[in-house]
Amino acid sequence: MLRRVDADLSVPELMAEIGRRARLAAQSLSTASPDQKTAALVAMADAVDRRTAAILDANSRDMANGQKAGMSAALLDRLKLDESRVAGISQSIRAIAGLKDPVGDVIAEWDRPNGLHIERVRTPLGVVGVIYESRPNVTADAGALCLKSGNAVILRGGSDSAHSSCAIHEALLEGLLAAGLPDDAIQLVPTTDRAAVGEMLMGLAGSLDVIIPRGGKSLVARVQAEARVPVFAHLEGICHLYVDASADLAMARRIAVNAKMRRTGVCGSAETLLVDRIAAPTHLVPLLLDLKSAGCEIRGDSAVKDLFADVELATEGDWSTEYLDAIISVKLVDGVDGAIEHINHYSSHHTEAVIAEDLRVVERFFNEIDSAILLHNASTQFADGGEFGMGAEIGIATGKMHARGPVGVEQLTSFKYQVRGNGQIRP
Amino acid sequence: MLRRVDADLSVPELMAEIGRRARLAAQSLSTASPDQKTAALVAMADAVDRRTAAILDANSRDMANGQKAGMSAALLDRLKLDESRVAGISQSIRAIAGLKDPVGDVIAEWDRPNGLHIERVRTPLGVVGVIYESRPNVTADAGALCLKSGNAVILRGGSDSAHSSCAIHEALLEGLLAAGLPDDAIQLVPTTDRAAVGEMLMGLAGSLDVIIPRGGKSLVARVQAEARVPVFAHLEGICHLYVDASADLAMARRIAVNAKMRRTGVCGSAETLLVDRIAAPTHLVPLLLDLKSAGCEIRGDSAVKDLFADVELATEGDWSTEYLDAIISVKLVDGVDGAIEHINHYSSHHTEAVIAEDLRVVERFFNEIDSAILLHNASTQFADGGEFGMGAEIGIATGKMHARGPVGVEQLTSFKYQVRGNGQIRP
Repeated sequence: MLRRVDADLSVPELMAEIGRRARLAAQSLSTASPDQKTAALVAMADAVDRRTAAILDANSRDMANGQKAGMSAALLDRLKLDESRVAGISQSIRAIAGLKDPVGDVIAEWDRPNGLHIERVRTPLGVVGVIYESRPNVTADAGALCLKSGNAVILRGGSDSAHSSCAIHEALLEGLLAAGLPDDAIQLVPTTDRAAVGEMLMGLAGSLDVIIPRGGKSLVARVQAEARVPVFAHLEGICHLYVDASADLAMARRIAVNAKMRRTGVCGSAETLLVDRIAAPTHLVPLLLDLKSAGCEIRGDSAVKDLFADVELATEGDWSTEYLDAIISVKLVDGVDGAIEHINHYSSHHTEAVIAEDLRVVERFFNEIDSAILLHNASTQFADGGEFGMGAEIGIATGKMHARGPVGVEQLTSFKYQVRGNGQIRP
Repeated sequence: MLRRVDADLSVPELMAEIGRRARLAAQSLSTASPDQKTAALVAMADAVDRRTAAILDANSRDMANGQKAGMSAALLDRLKLDESRVAGISQSIRAIAGLKDPVGDVIAEWDRPNGLHIERVRTPLGVVGVIYESRPNVTADAGALCLKSGNAVILRGGSDSAHSSCAIHEALLEGLLAAGLPDDAIQLVPTTDRAAVGEMLMGLAGSLDVIIPRGGKSLVARVQAEARVPVFAHLEGICHLYVDASADLAMARRIAVNAKMRRTGVCGSAETLLVDRIAAPTHLVPLLLDLKSAGCEIRGDSAVKDLFADVELATEGDWSTEYLDAIISVKLVDGVDGAIEHINHYSSHHTEAVIAEDLRVVERFFNEIDSAILLHNASTQFADGGEFGMGAEIGIATGKMHARGPVGVEQLTSFKYQVRGNGQIRP
């Protein structure tokens, strides 16, 4: 992009131009053949592999800047690439290349009594905007998922990872050109001026169909509050694990530790454990001992503290806190009714799990809680497009419009109706 | 509503209260049984029938006000109810009662290698806002469709039809109460203050999930420009009919007259006829003679005028005008390429039809035009939820998010994932 956009443009002019180019690219992508898109993706993966040294070199510049700026160890780890992480990037592109092409898929079809045959057929959405922070791999994942689904994408990465993203983007462009696809199909915004984000939130004068923010809560909150175009996002994952009196205790213990501790920084990590009051005498202490010995801090309500002294007393704020850390809030509830009531009050509508052998409890939990993902006898950490079999995800959405849960290639499509007749007129 | 909302509330307070009540009602509707919703709908239809005299009396007050205010004959016709139209309203509710309940439908299900079973299950959207103008039947159609799909609805009718809408709404409330459902499930905004619309466009502090405007272009344009919540709508239907050189002329003539003239005031009425330049010598004159003798005024480009003198010369503005009247713009184009180019430039992405026997032409038309509805050898006037077999529609959407084309009960739903395991943890 840098080489082709006039350097004298103001940010609004630059972004409008990027939007226009994306719209044109989207038009030609919408009729690109599945083979052409797959070829481009494979060429991208090859280019990433071949350019590994250049990508690592660019990343070391970002890392040096980050260290100089006093970036936290956690952020530096998100930013850091090494040979195996770059190989992971190209592997991920290859996996997306191997997915079924969603465009043209007949989602439903039926005949009408007058002989009309109606098909609902998948189409690309158009132009996707992705606003992300320090993870450079989002450049490749988002670019590849959007291409597979026939969408043009405008990528706005964080300034912290600008060199890394740019080096990865060069590899994506090489793949597009090798397959004869327009390089405007995957554009990286060539400025770190924050005004560029503001322009994207306003929709680039109708050139942007949806925005996907990938990053911390403040980024997502800003996008959700200000965007004038649809947003696929989740603000946070306040995920609950409810252990019913009918639960298999051994299973509940295994799942509780996994749901909280497998990775504490992911959105599907459990933040609150709800235990059926009836089962507390038998189930609570083993569950909390397991969590403790896995290194988890426990904040419990007073009923929990009565049964297990070694906990900090939870405050009201704990029930709506996404710790993203080795901390869990724990509460006794009155059966599935109490669990449903607590979750419907505090949940971020992301993911909730119930551990129970009583299937009536499961049905009530599934029917009366309106979260994107509900799990029975499984860890909340399965909240992931890859684990759902979608191949890859560009994020997880908690809104109820269009996409909900993991956003993969199918969720990046719309549809149109194709109706075939033989001369029908309407009476 | 009027009897229960404190009359001293300001409009923002009133609307916030309506929103809160709708959200609560939505929660209880989301778990209402299919039978209970069907019973409510049947009771509503019965109540409409029983209250016919009261509804007609209310309508005659609206009609008298409209006549006093100098309302146009077309608007008065939209407003007017008689016994057969009221019977149509109750029939329509009964038809919606008979539709398959979409809530709980398993849209897709699959197994993962680790044994997890994943289902994507339909859920209600939540709270729907409908803003409409003078057609009183929208009160019943929107109320019934939202109830069937498990959504609470906030209806904001036009002041012109306030008495009629209120009388119909009373019948809907009677049905809800008869079935033991909360009467807040279908609320009619009890004020004609335009500020109420502004509050709905802002989303009632998160209580509104989607807005559906039903009315003229200026209403829809305002909603699309100002709404901070998703909108299902079409601004206009600039629908095209393309007659290819391979078309069966007799079929093309029949369809052209039907597409334009069956009803000129509906959004699926054709506004522009595109004729393949190669076929012009044989096809153009018969097509235009048929349209003329059906009472249609013709505005053609100069190439059309060369072949058929009795036309007004079209201006640039004609190609983007939704006449909603017995007027059609006509242009010669260079085959399907020319048709696609013209339509992609001027279309409102609503509905386009191609008349052709050459299936390669049809495939290109279907693939390269991104409108909600594409038809082959059939009239554009089939753009209608009833004609699609959806039972009824609350409107037609031209956006690409969530709903596109006719918006029926399925389009008024979202989904959630229900995942069943037997102790799976994520490695």
